[in-house]
Amino acid sequence: METFHPIVWSGDAKSGHLKLLDQTRLPEEEVYLECRDVESVWHAIKRLSVRGAPAIGISAAYACVISAQSGGGEAALDFAAEYLATSRPTAVNLFWALGRMRGVRPADPDTLLAEAKKIHEEDKAMCLKIGVHGLGILKKLAEGSTERFGILTHCNAGALATGGIGTATAPIYMAHEEGVAIKVFADETRPLLQGARLTAFELFRAGVDVRIIADNMAGLVMREGKVGMVIVGADRIAHNGDTANKVGTYSVAVLAKHHGVPFYVAAPTSTFDLAIKDGSEIPIEQRASEEITHGFGRRTAPEGALVYNPAFDVTPAELITGIITDRGVISPVNAFNVDRAMRGE
Amino acid sequence: METFHPIVWSGDAKSGHLKLLDQTRLPEEEVYLECRDVESVWHAIKRLSVRGAPAIGISAAYACVISAQSGGGEAALDFAAEYLATSRPTAVNLFWALGRMRGVRPADPDTLLAEAKKIHEEDKAMCLKIGVHGLGILKKLAEGSTERFGILTHCNAGALATGGIGTATAPIYMAHEEGVAIKVFADETRPLLQGARLTAFELFRAGVDVRIIADNMAGLVMREGKVGMVIVGADRIAHNGDTANKVGTYSVAVLAKHHGVPFYVAAPTSTFDLAIKDGSEIPIEQRASEEITHGFGRRTAPEGALVYNPAFDVTPAELITGIITDRGVISPVNAFNVDRAMRGE
Repeated sequence: METFHPIVWSGDAKSGHLKLLDQTRLPEEEVYLECRDVESVWHAIKRLSVRGAPAIGISAAYACVISAQSGGGEAALDFAAEYLATSRPTAVNLFWALGRMRGVRPADPDTLLAEAKKIHEEDKAMCLKIGVHGLGILKKLAEGSTERFGILTHCNAGALATGGIGTATAPIYMAHEEGVAIKVFADETRPLLQGARLTAFELFRAGVDVRIIADNMAGLVMREGKVGMVIVGADRIAHNGDTANKVGTYSVAVLAKHHGVPFYVAAPTSTFDLAIKDGSEIPIEQRASEEITHGFGRRTAPEGALVYNPAFDVTPAELITGIITDRGVISPVNAFNVDRAMRGE
Repeated sequence: METFHPIVWSGDAKSGHLKLLDQTRLPEEEVYLECRDVESVWHAIKRLSVRGAPAIGISAAYACVISAQSGGGEAALDFAAEYLATSRPTAVNLFWALGRMRGVRPADPDTLLAEAKKIHEEDKAMCLKIGVHGLGILKKLAEGSTERFGILTHCNAGALATGGIGTATAPIYMAHEEGVAIKVFADETRPLLQGARLTAFELFRAGVDVRIIADNMAGLVMREGKVGMVIVGADRIAHNGDTANKVGTYSVAVLAKHHGVPFYVAAPTSTFDLAIKDGSEIPIEQRASEEITHGFGRRTAPEGALVYNPAFDVTPAELITGIITDRGVISPVNAFNVDRAMRGE
């Protein structure tokens, strides 16, 4: 399956650098940022040139390789990892990947690059496993459907957000390859429109039947009977299954419940934060007002108007039908079943 | 109370013309369109320079005056009314106002202008009455609230949408004048951002505490306990109380129900269409894909991507706590109570 390569290591360990597809410029331009120092990776994460929990983790891992290129060893690695951890507060994959990189010995470019590539490859493999588990659910739900089976997704948990074929999109790509008749509704996902700019972009290019809707139309398409399943990604999942994901996910979950539509989260094991009991402990990043008041370069709100702009919200476990992981599907969603899945049972 | 004057008749009946505040250019510029023929009013309605069910009706009434200025009498009036009726299909106030104007005899500019001004004045008075009824509900719900009482609204059913202080905003303006501590959450309302561009604009200028949120945050602010009441406008209300309003209203109603937040519709009598049994018979206008794919002058979706862009959705009566009209509050919402209210009981 041909997908995007949003994260590319170019060259050898000692003098190579990281290329990141600048997702802020999609769908208009496909341009790579050439990151030759840790700061530029930090900025790329901060300004969402690279985004999506798994992709952030992978990028930070490669940034650790760069940190060791000037021979600073463990001290330089630790310093870089602490700095990179300040880029975004919610996605736990960032801290998970940095933790793994900090444990690498010796802390030289070659050994670090091997570990970063391993994280990257593992993520790719996790996407495939999520795809297999999700495809099983999708096909079961689509059984007997006389029309194209409708799948609604929010934000982008696709190839652009991971090292592989995405998390939420993995079952979609696989269903498409198998010839299952599907139709995807992509919430455009304000304020930064990751649904319209990224999800619709990558699915459309892959030939998947995808339709963009404004976020506020999710309830309507469900009421019209067009949606058989919701799948979204995750930025951090607490021990009890409460899930932080792009703001708006919670509203979609409530709407799905009202309409009796199964609501699934798809995420790799690295997105779970077992140290956190429930969603109330997940830090939520607040972002700049301008994302809402000056979308797309034009002022769309009165000067001085106040804005509330959290980047994420938390969907409580009881609204989630199941969490599709690389280690199987957690359902019903609760701490006991999360523990079981993490142990690989 | 100082409000906007989005619709102004300038000059006498025989040679005067209609000035419409071009709402597509708000909040950046306050510019009036000078309409000296029926076509320019038709275009102003079509392209949403003037919008909001009551304001569309009033504008169409003034356009009928213009149609009679060249001495065409009844024939010219009928022709103009039929043409104007094709501008937008959902808001019933348009057809209601045109019906009233077609009944005017003699069909000369002076008599027609008197009727158009009467429609305009009546709408202004209806806003005040809606405000009084709504304020009673608002104050009761806000009683004992230790924080500012939160009100969520969608789209713009404000002064900019009417001949007066708005429908959904009327109780808000009155509460503000009385010093009731309120805080308004304005859904930005994709695709055309009437909430951010218009509602936040007029409330902010009036000194009301207003905060813009992306549509997908409505569920979140309700979950956070910040919303004590939802008030929205209406474009057409069926006999049983099913209500067509700006797309996204239905999702807000479902979210309100899930969180136990009272959900009110505010609308003048002219928005009811008793000829229609329920919401399934209300025609829903489909608008151009570009509103979603090229918002704000920049392409935000891949070339060729498909879009679903209905301008309205229908909220079923059972999700509506009450309909606040100029003739009192309809609650519970059903055909029997609608009939009673229409008879003024």
